[in-house]
Amino acid sequence: MDNRHYTIGQMAKLTNLPSQTLRYYDQIDLFKPIYTDPATNYRYYAESQLYLIDLIKSLRFVGTPLEKIKEIQHFSIEEMINYLNKQEETLANKLAQLQETQYTLRKTRKQMEEQLAIPVLNEVFTKHEESARLLCLTAPNATPEHVSNDEMRKLTETIENEGSVQTIRYGSYYPLKRYKQIEDIQYTQIFIPILTSKLFHVQNEAMNIVTMPEGKYIEMAFIYTSAQYIQMYEKLWQYIQINDLHVEEVVWESIMPMSFSTNVEEKILVELKVRLLD
Amino acid sequence: MDNRHYTIGQMAKLTNLPSQTLRYYDQIDLFKPIYTDPATNYRYYAESQLYLIDLIKSLRFVGTPLEKIKEIQHFSIEEMINYLNKQEETLANKLAQLQETQYTLRKTRKQMEEQLAIPVLNEVFTKHEESARLLCLTAPNATPEHVSNDEMRKLTETIENEGSVQTIRYGSYYPLKRYKQIEDIQYTQIFIPILTSKLFHVQNEAMNIVTMPEGKYIEMAFIYTSAQYIQMYEKLWQYIQINDLHVEEVVWESIMPMSFSTNVEEKILVELKVRLLD
Repeated sequence: MDNRHYTIGQMAKLTNLPSQTLRYYDQIDLFKPIYTDPATNYRYYAESQLYLIDLIKSLRFVGTPLEKIKEIQHFSIEEMINYLNKQEETLANKLAQLQETQYTLRKTRKQMEEQLAIPVLNEVFTKHEESARLLCLTAPNATPEHVSNDEMRKLTETIENEGSVQTIRYGSYYPLKRYKQIEDIQYTQIFIPILTSKLFHVQNEAMNIVTMPEGKYIEMAFIYTSAQYIQMYEKLWQYIQINDLHVEEVVWESIMPMSFSTNVEEKILVELKVRLLD
Repeated sequence: MDNRHYTIGQMAKLTNLPSQTLRYYDQIDLFKPIYTDPATNYRYYAESQLYLIDLIKSLRFVGTPLEKIKEIQHFSIEEMINYLNKQEETLANKLAQLQETQYTLRKTRKQMEEQLAIPVLNEVFTKHEESARLLCLTAPNATPEHVSNDEMRKLTETIENEGSVQTIRYGSYYPLKRYKQIEDIQYTQIFIPILTSKLFHVQNEAMNIVTMPEGKYIEMAFIYTSAQYIQMYEKLWQYIQINDLHVEEVVWESIMPMSFSTNVEEKILVELKVRLLD
C-alpha cells in the first residue's frame, strides 16, 4: 500500500471522527474504505476520500439523515444545490414557526406577570401599560354579566384560523360615564389580545383590530361578583371626578381566572383601566 | 343540570376542538367533565372550564407535552411564569442553533453555486467575489503539491470545536510574482472558509482570521495536475503583465473536488484569484 492510504485509526484522527463512526458508516454503505484486507479485516482509506467526509459532515450539520446522504453523494453539483435550496426553505418555515412560538411564549408570560403586578385589590392604583393589539367583535348584547359564548368563539376561531393561539385573557371596552346599576353597562366591543406579531386578516364585518395605546392608566382590580363590579366601578369613577383627572372616555376591562385548576373555587379577576391623557 | 353545563358536542364547538380530543383529554386525566351521567355515560362540562382549555391550548402551542400540562394546571401563577421562562430559554437556544444551520446551509449552497459559475476552464476570466472570512494557518512547508493532512486537521478541529462545520472547500494564498517551477511556490498560509456568523476564538498562535476582500477578481480555473498548475499560473501572470493591470500582490487559491463519489475518478478543481485594485 502506498503512503496515501490510511488505517481506520489514522482516518479517525484526520477526520476528527471516532473509529466507531467510521465503522458504522462502512456498515451502512455510506462511507466505505477503498480496501479491506481479507486476512486481517483491516480497513484502508484513500486521502481523496477526505472530501467525502467533509460533505457528509456538512450535510449532517444541516440536518440531513444518513440515508439521504448516501443518495446525495452521487448527485451532481446542480442536484446538490437543488437539495440545499429545498432544505433552506424547510428550515425557513421551521424558523418562522419557532419565532412565532417565541413571541407567543413571551406575551403569555407577560400577561401572567401583569396579573402578579397588580399592587392591590379594591383600591385605585396607577400603572404603565404597554400597547396591545386586540381582536375586537361588536357584540350588541354583551354586558359584564353576560357575554355569549358563541361570540367569544368567533374571536377564538379567527385567531386560530390565522395560525395563532388564544390568550388566557378576555376583555371588553365601553364608554366611561356614570352608571347607576350594572345592567346599564353595555360593552362597545368584546376582545381577545392578539399574541402574534404577524399580519392579521379579519374577514368578519363585525370584527376589527383595535390597539389599546401605551401609557399611564388609572386602574381598579377586584374579584368578580355583580355587586362588586358596580361598587368598584363607582369607586374608580369617583376617584377620577374628585381628582379632576384628564382621561380618555373609555374603560378597558380585562378578565382572567385566578386559577385554572377545576378543583379550586372559580374566581375571576377583573381589571378596569382608564388612560390618563397628558 | 342548569344551562351553564355543556355536552361534549357543545363543548367541542365552544373550544374549537374535536370531540375525540376532549374524550382523549378525559381519558388521560388532563381535562375532565365535571359530571358524567352513569346511566348514559354522557359527559357534561361547566362554563368555567373554558379557561382551562385556553391554558391547555396556549401551552400546547408553545410545545408543552400533555403530561407536563397536567402538572402545570395546578401551578400557581408564579410557578407558571417560571416554567414559561425556562421554555423561552430552551427555545432561544434552539433558534440560535437553527439560525446557525441556516447560515451554514446558505454558505454551502453559495460555494457550490460559485463552482457552477466558473465560465471557462484554462482561460482567464473576471468575477465579482463576496468577502469571505478565512481561518488561516501558517504552514511553512505547504505547497501546491503538498499540504500536510495534520495541518489541515488543525483547521478542521478548530472550526468544529467552535461548534461550526467544515466547508467542502480548502484554500491558500501566496505572493503574486513570476514562478519558474511549481516547486518555487510556497504558501503564505493555508485556510478553510468560516461558515459561521458567530464570533470565533482562535487560540493557536500559528492561526488567525483573514478576510478575503469583496471585489472584482482576475481568475483562472483548471483541473489539478502539477504541470497544469504552473502552466495556468503562467497564463494568468502573463495576462496581468500584458494588460498592465493594477492588482493586489496576492494569489488566492481555492480547491474543491469535482465530485464526491468514491466511484468516480478523482478530479480536483483549482481556482486562482487575483484582486483588481481600483
